[in-house]
Amino acid sequence: MLRNLEVVLVGVRFPENVGMAARACANMGCPNLTLVTTRPWSSEKARPPATSKGLRILESMRVSQDLDAALANTVLTIGATARVGGHRQNILSPEQAAEEVVPLLGEGRVALIFGSEDRGLTNEVIERCRRLVTIPTSGEASSLNVAQAVLLLLYECRKAAAKHNHVPSRIPGPPSRLATQEETERLLHTLRTALLRIDYLPTDNPDYFFLPIRRFLGKIRLRRHETDLLMGVCRRINGVADRAARHKEE
Amino acid sequence: MLRNLEVVLVGVRFPENVGMAARACANMGCPNLTLVTTRPWSSEKARPPATSKGLRILESMRVSQDLDAALANTVLTIGATARVGGHRQNILSPEQAAEEVVPLLGEGRVALIFGSEDRGLTNEVIERCRRLVTIPTSGEASSLNVAQAVLLLLYECRKAAAKHNHVPSRIPGPPSRLATQEETERLLHTLRTALLRIDYLPTDNPDYFFLPIRRFLGKIRLRRHETDLLMGVCRRINGVADRAARHKEE
Repeated sequence: MLRNLEVVLVGVRFPENVGMAARACANMGCPNLTLVTTRPWSSEKARPPATSKGLRILESMRVSQDLDAALANTVLTIGATARVGGHRQNILSPEQAAEEVVPLLGEGRVALIFGSEDRGLTNEVIERCRRLVTIPTSGEASSLNVAQAVLLLLYECRKAAAKHNHVPSRIPGPPSRLATQEETERLLHTLRTALLRIDYLPTDNPDYFFLPIRRFLGKIRLRRHETDLLMGVCRRINGVADRAARHKEE
Repeated sequence: MLRNLEVVLVGVRFPENVGMAARACANMGCPNLTLVTTRPWSSEKARPPATSKGLRILESMRVSQDLDAALANTVLTIGATARVGGHRQNILSPEQAAEEVVPLLGEGRVALIFGSEDRGLTNEVIERCRRLVTIPTSGEASSLNVAQAVLLLLYECRKAAAKHNHVPSRIPGPPSRLATQEETERLLHTLRTALLRIDYLPTDNPDYFFLPIRRFLGKIRLRRHETDLLMGVCRRINGVADRAARHKEE
């Protein structure tokens, strides 16, 4: 779904963050991770936070010294920044960014670019970004952990992609259809009978006292399996009421 | 904006994750963090990943050994889980969860509950969750780092809150306050007893068969007068069950 999306970490220093970013890529189904750095790189400390799920992405990560080379084949570059002042105008929200990214993924590679832990995106990197995105935060703490920012932007891209592609998500749909008026009324009738039989409702004007129950069930959008569930409870109540009634008669 | 929201970490082991969760809370403006654990807790290793921004939240974090005590005053409990099979139906997406959470924040405390790194939410915790939420992920890597999951759900709540706050609602107030976790658990306990007594639940593994009922009531934002209503029904069922039992004995 996000096969053509690429996460590019520029100057990220802590291997733990690279590992966590790899895990986030695995979580959201983005297979491409690139690290742009002039420092020597070793994946050793990045492996535990990548977990087994992110390991393949970590191991196949491109490591490049040259930002321009890393971005050469992309059709869109979006930089994630916490700073929104000055020339950094027209900054996208994560949702808006995802809406720009996803339609392009059928056509070419899109890079989401993240800066270092201490400096974020430098002006040099910003210049190479066609678009900027910022994650809305509390005013007092605007800087996210870089792997957190990766996860969040991939999450929005994934949502947008699912919407565009009609890809079934892992969230199971409601387990059954909504109950019809007829089914709901049948349940209410059965419940009313049961509540009468256990003397919860008085025989004198039961409908008045049944009203709060009606209203209570009315506020729920009952589904078919739920009416079945409640019908089962009502049947049991009636069964016990039968036994109790026999006791009374004897 | 999210002043009444609470992040509850249950059994989270690594202080680094607690620290990162504190930072995520600071980023998204959620001031309440609770750790439920039976292990000794020291915040030392949690401080660096919390960063200066998350430090105040980390230092004021509640540490509790008792999950029920930690949740007692909440009006809604939502558990984050990566597992979506079996009885775990009607699971919300993060957006849907945020839409349920945010309108309640004016009325009471809402808990977002996260499990441990290795086991996630145990069944014991799941039972106490009125609702479940899952973050849509790639099929191959469904388990997120716990602090990542915290960030992402807070992010959606923040988005929903921003949307809601601009719209003053003209809808008149509800007829009574929302039921608390404690009141709801008391109702569930009473209902479970009643359903056992009328043989709706088998004595062998009743909790498993009670789960659909829990789920069903979990999707309703029960109000105080409604728990009273249902408690009244339960008392009646128990009364009839008493009479039926006497009949059996004779």
